[in-house]
Amino acid sequence: MGQEALKDTSFTIVEGGSVTTPQGFTAGGLHCGLKKTTRHDLGAIVCEVPAAAAGVYTTNIFQAAPIKVTKDSIGQDGQLRAIIVNSGNANACTGQQGEEDAYEMRQAFATAIGVSADQVAVASTGVIGELLKMEAIRSGAASLPAKLGSSYEAADDFCQAILTTDLVKKEACVSVTIDGKTVHIAGASKGSGMIHPNMATMLGFVTTDAAIGSEALQGALRQVTDLTFNMITVDGDTSTNDMLVAMASGLAGNNELSPAHPDWAAFVEGLRYVCEVLAKAIARDGEGATKLVEVQVRGAVSDEAAQAIAKTVIGSSLVKSAVFGADANWGRIIAAVGRAGQPVNPETVDIRLGDIVTLAQSRPVVFDEEVALEYLKGDTVVIHVDLNMDNGAATAWGCDLTYDYVRINAAYRT
Amino acid sequence: MGQEALKDTSFTIVEGGSVTTPQGFTAGGLHCGLKKTTRHDLGAIVCEVPAAAAGVYTTNIFQAAPIKVTKDSIGQDGQLRAIIVNSGNANACTGQQGEEDAYEMRQAFATAIGVSADQVAVASTGVIGELLKMEAIRSGAASLPAKLGSSYEAADDFCQAILTTDLVKKEACVSVTIDGKTVHIAGASKGSGMIHPNMATMLGFVTTDAAIGSEALQGALRQVTDLTFNMITVDGDTSTNDMLVAMASGLAGNNELSPAHPDWAAFVEGLRYVCEVLAKAIARDGEGATKLVEVQVRGAVSDEAAQAIAKTVIGSSLVKSAVFGADANWGRIIAAVGRAGQPVNPETVDIRLGDIVTLAQSRPVVFDEEVALEYLKGDTVVIHVDLNMDNGAATAWGCDLTYDYVRINAAYRT
Repeated sequence: MGQEALKDTSFTIVEGGSVTTPQGFTAGGLHCGLKKTTRHDLGAIVCEVPAAAAGVYTTNIFQAAPIKVTKDSIGQDGQLRAIIVNSGNANACTGQQGEEDAYEMRQAFATAIGVSADQVAVASTGVIGELLKMEAIRSGAASLPAKLGSSYEAADDFCQAILTTDLVKKEACVSVTIDGKTVHIAGASKGSGMIHPNMATMLGFVTTDAAIGSEALQGALRQVTDLTFNMITVDGDTSTNDMLVAMASGLAGNNELSPAHPDWAAFVEGLRYVCEVLAKAIARDGEGATKLVEVQVRGAVSDEAAQAIAKTVIGSSLVKSAVFGADANWGRIIAAVGRAGQPVNPETVDIRLGDIVTLAQSRPVVFDEEVALEYLKGDTVVIHVDLNMDNGAATAWGCDLTYDYVRINAAYRT
Repeated sequence: MGQEALKDTSFTIVEGGSVTTPQGFTAGGLHCGLKKTTRHDLGAIVCEVPAAAAGVYTTNIFQAAPIKVTKDSIGQDGQLRAIIVNSGNANACTGQQGEEDAYEMRQAFATAIGVSADQVAVASTGVIGELLKMEAIRSGAASLPAKLGSSYEAADDFCQAILTTDLVKKEACVSVTIDGKTVHIAGASKGSGMIHPNMATMLGFVTTDAAIGSEALQGALRQVTDLTFNMITVDGDTSTNDMLVAMASGLAGNNELSPAHPDWAAFVEGLRYVCEVLAKAIARDGEGATKLVEVQVRGAVSDEAAQAIAKTVIGSSLVKSAVFGADANWGRIIAAVGRAGQPVNPETVDIRLGDIVTLAQSRPVVFDEEVALEYLKGDTVVIHVDLNMDNGAATAWGCDLTYDYVRINAAYRT
């Protein structure tokens, strides 16, 4: 997954950067035995100093045990030294035993790296309703410190360890100049099914060496989440498990960031870009997906209305199937716009597929089907909807609905 | 599509009954040239006397031209003599010309059967954004009266003419005794994709020989729609076109029905049953579906909460894929329950698949996977969710998500 084109000059993309690029962080991963294959299934990111921490969590009522543990850890003093993540088992709907297991997983890794338990966050992803194999977790947590490093390979091991049905790892890294210091912001994520965040429905981990307090970091993370992770959908389902956690080591040596800092906007923009790259990578790697679909809504009565419409279009199974079939079926797009429950003037809607105008002022425009077919066969499809009402705007990302989505999800558990 | 087991003794199922069984109605269908195949694509139901009429329409902002025309006709005096329906073209997003075409279609059939235009309703289903071939409509409307009849074959021609990607026709008929008279209630419907009504997202036509005013019929139709057609979903999309129209000839000779009539409840129950059979037939025949899925939610804080939860579960692509794969993945069911936005106690949920208990008080129950596999391989799967909070209850119907859904919708227009 390559990073997207530079969109703003306030940050610089760091080629080959990963979660260990910001100063103070090491990472690693290994196979402890939760996955049936030999793929990595346990990983960690560790900071050499107490890092300011922030988290955004699933809105699903059934929150998995690791969500509770991580909230508990960050809630203590807004600081973390590490996060440990397993794939292959979500430790969700596992009751009291599941909660005890998540706390034991936290303690095991805290002991292994010599920090207190409340300095460690826990994340899990995988099958719901089965107890964690604690023997595997215990031995894995004990072996993990020896795997930690700051090399690209160590970061790669971590990125691999958090994947489930993902086909590719997801990472991003930028640098921003703050107070004349180079600050790095990096991230890794996973997630390819059950993606329809009402907040942060995937696993995402952000590291930065910026000096910033926990509260300011939480504010920035929430702000960019609403524009990035919360604007992707793969299948409309919201997981019980997913979380986005950020850790800031402060080792870049800038003056502490807050909204009053003159470079605050540059930091937030860098963070937003990292999260956008990670979110789009999740959408592109949606279960069975063959392409990234981007829906840009403009001219709505508000940004919120535009967001709701963009998410309705990106979530439509009919639109997703049509994109898979390279069918310029704009009728399904307008049908989705019309059922989003938002103010729409049925007489003033424009729709474009890339540069191909298919509807102007709600009237069909004759277009070259061959040109449209070629465009829709590409690996990225952008659907533009202009309501021509006001200035509300939003962008959402998703993927096409394919045979492979059905194949993957018909046989996931068995 | 066989009718379902008798659920109430207030009505009697009429085997082999159809829309022409109630006294006063004829029907018919033919191929006029809108479909590329030779399948029927134009049909009509005609009543020999002015029938009390009622309609429920799509909530999509982009309502197709025939919706406007039918509202106009029924709005004149609450009476209809006929409804003409075409498949193969939705006449939606077709602007001023589309509206003129729908009015011309109405006039053409009114002239052909010798009634005034405002006594005729119009319905269309098919591709969005293309103008109707009016030559085909004109010649078809002129030929249609010769095809009308009250035989089962004539009713069958009508049922076939309204289908698009449907595999089977959908019809139902019951009789109810009112004032000692035998009253018939019958219906036909179509719809297999873009089914997720915020009211009546399909085409449905109900005939009855009951004596009932337009207003009372409208009330009964709205009431049963919320329990039947509004509780099915195939893919979460709401069409621009769909409508449910009822016509009552009054020829059964009962005293005029209204909520004050002692047999009102029996009439509404018969109407509800007809609409439930038609709605379930649509769900079972969902695009690409291999089975009917029923979700029964009990113990919710209100019926409305139960409805929202049932529809979230039935609409989950992950649940639908798991059912297709006969995978007893109750984790996806509880994840859907948890994101429905309704009050749920995360500690008290029971889930059963048929009679197989998989979750009790939100804790996994060990079950026989082989037994579950056999059950899920059946042609009807019932998912029971009990929240154990209060008495709110609802039932929703849908289907599994299959390779064929993707195949059908990736290539529908091209």
